[in-house]
Amino acid sequence: MKQSIAIQGERASFHDMAATKYFGREMPIQACESFHDVFSTVNRGEVEYGITAIENTLYGSIVEVYDLLLKNDMQIVGEIYLHINQCLIGLPGTSISDIKVVYSHPVALAQCEEYLDSHVASAVRIEQHDTAASVRQIKARGDKHAGAIGGRVAAEYHGLEILADAIETDSQNYTRFVVLKRQGKAIKDANKTSLVMTTSGESGSLYKALGVFALAGINLTKLQSRPLIGQAWRYRFYLDVAEGMQSSRMKRALDELQDCTLELKVLGSYKSGSELER
Amino acid sequence: MKQSIAIQGERASFHDMAATKYFGREMPIQACESFHDVFSTVNRGEVEYGITAIENTLYGSIVEVYDLLLKNDMQIVGEIYLHINQCLIGLPGTSISDIKVVYSHPVALAQCEEYLDSHVASAVRIEQHDTAASVRQIKARGDKHAGAIGGRVAAEYHGLEILADAIETDSQNYTRFVVLKRQGKAIKDANKTSLVMTTSGESGSLYKALGVFALAGINLTKLQSRPLIGQAWRYRFYLDVAEGMQSSRMKRALDELQDCTLELKVLGSYKSGSELER
Repeated sequence: MKQSIAIQGERASFHDMAATKYFGREMPIQACESFHDVFSTVNRGEVEYGITAIENTLYGSIVEVYDLLLKNDMQIVGEIYLHINQCLIGLPGTSISDIKVVYSHPVALAQCEEYLDSHVASAVRIEQHDTAASVRQIKARGDKHAGAIGGRVAAEYHGLEILADAIETDSQNYTRFVVLKRQGKAIKDANKTSLVMTTSGESGSLYKALGVFALAGINLTKLQSRPLIGQAWRYRFYLDVAEGMQSSRMKRALDELQDCTLELKVLGSYKSGSELER
Repeated sequence: MKQSIAIQGERASFHDMAATKYFGREMPIQACESFHDVFSTVNRGEVEYGITAIENTLYGSIVEVYDLLLKNDMQIVGEIYLHINQCLIGLPGTSISDIKVVYSHPVALAQCEEYLDSHVASAVRIEQHDTAASVRQIKARGDKHAGAIGGRVAAEYHGLEILADAIETDSQNYTRFVVLKRQGKAIKDANKTSLVMTTSGESGSLYKALGVFALAGINLTKLQSRPLIGQAWRYRFYLDVAEGMQSSRMKRALDELQDCTLELKVLGSYKSGSELER
C-alpha cells in the first residue's frame, strides 16, 4: 500500500491544506471527486489514509459523511480544524461586475450565499465537486465572465486574481476534518471519541444514554441525529465526547452505554485537533 | 389576504398532495420555487398559510427549513405526513435504456440514488426545484432521452408514462410537512410542540435540558442540532415533543427549561399528523 492520502478535491483545495497541516508537505495525495470516493479509495487499500470534511461552523454537518462512516468499516484516527477564508476568484483583469457565472463546491456556495445575493445577484451558481477544481477550470476556459469561490491558496496556485476576499457570511468559518484509516491501532494519547448509537426510542431513552456521559463528567462536544432507514421516524445518534477510549471512566461509560442502547459502535478514538487554530 | 397556501413546488407535486390532504381540494395554491420563497410569501401576507417539507425518513432533516423557521417569525400550526412513492417518468413510448438525463428535486434524487446507480448509471442527474416541474418540463421539451423522478400523480396530471415504480432506496419513505402561519391562535387540542433552544455549552447542559422533558414524562420525538453562527463549535437544538402547550405539565416543563437555557423559542404547538398514513 502506498503511503499516501485520499482527499476530497485536488491540489490547493481546503482538503489539501488540511492534509498538509496534518501530514506535512511530503505525503503524496490522491484527488477524489466525492466523499464517497475517498471512502472507497481507502477501503480498496489504494492509500493508507483518507481525509474528509465532516462539519463546518456555517454549513453544519456534512450528513453524507456521517452515513459513509457507518457504512464503511473504518476508523477515525485524527482530526484537523482549518479556518476557511473564501475568495471570489477570476481571471487577471476581471472585475466583479463582469461575473455572470460562479462555480464552486456546494458547501462553499452556501457559506457565501449572502455575499452572492448582494454583490453578484444575477450570476448563475454552478456546483462543482471542488473549490480548487473550479479555479483551475475557469483558468482553462479563459472565460472572463466566470468566477470561482475558493481559498487564497487556490488562486495563487493557479495564478488567478482575488476579486473579493473574506466573502463568507460570518468570519467564524471553520471546517473540521477527520483522518480515516482501515485498521487503526489504539492511540495512546487519544482525548476524543466518536461513536454512533441507537436507543430504544422509549420515552427518556436518549436522556438516559446521554446521562452515562454527563454523570461521568465526560463532555459531549457534538450530537447529530440521522434517520434510521427502514424504521420511519426513528433516529440514530452520532456523538463526539471529549475523552479517549483508554481512560477508566470512559471504559465504564461505554459498558453502561452498551446496556441502554440497541446498537453501539465506536467510530474512533483520537487526539483532538486545535479548534480555533488558523 | 387571500385564503390560499404557498407551497414549495407546483400542481401535482408532493407539496400539492400534502396541501390537498390538509386543506382539501378547494383551497388555491401559490407555487414557490424554493423553501425560502414559501416563507417570504407568507411573511409578505400574500397568502394565509405556507406548507413546507421539514424531514424525510430516507433523506433526513431539510436543515434549510430549520434555519428559516428561526429567521422568520412564524408559527407551526399543523403537520402532515405523506407516504412518498417515487417513479421514473418519461414520454409515452420511452424505455429505461433510452434515458440519458434524469431531472428532479435534489431530495428525490437522493432518495432514489441506489436505483439510479444500478439502472441508469450513465445518466446525468440534474437538480430542479420541484418534482412536478421536472415532469412538466420533459413533456414540454419532448425529449425521449430525458426522465424525471416524481410521484404517480405528477405523471398522470401531465399524461406521461411511468417507466419504473417505487424506485426509492427503501419503501419506508415518508415526508413530514409543517403548516405555517404568521400569527397563529393557540390550538386547543394541540398534542405536539416544536421549539428551539441554546444551552450554556457547559458539561451536561444538554442532558439537563432534555431531563426537563424526560422527568415530566414528555416524549421527545425529534432532536436536530444546527451550528450557532458566529460561535464556532457551539450548537442550537431543535426539539419536537409529544405534548401540547396547554397542559400543565408542559407549562411547568417550559418554565424549568427557561432556567437552564440561554435562548428558548416555541416554534408552534399543534395537532400531530398521522405518522404512517398513506
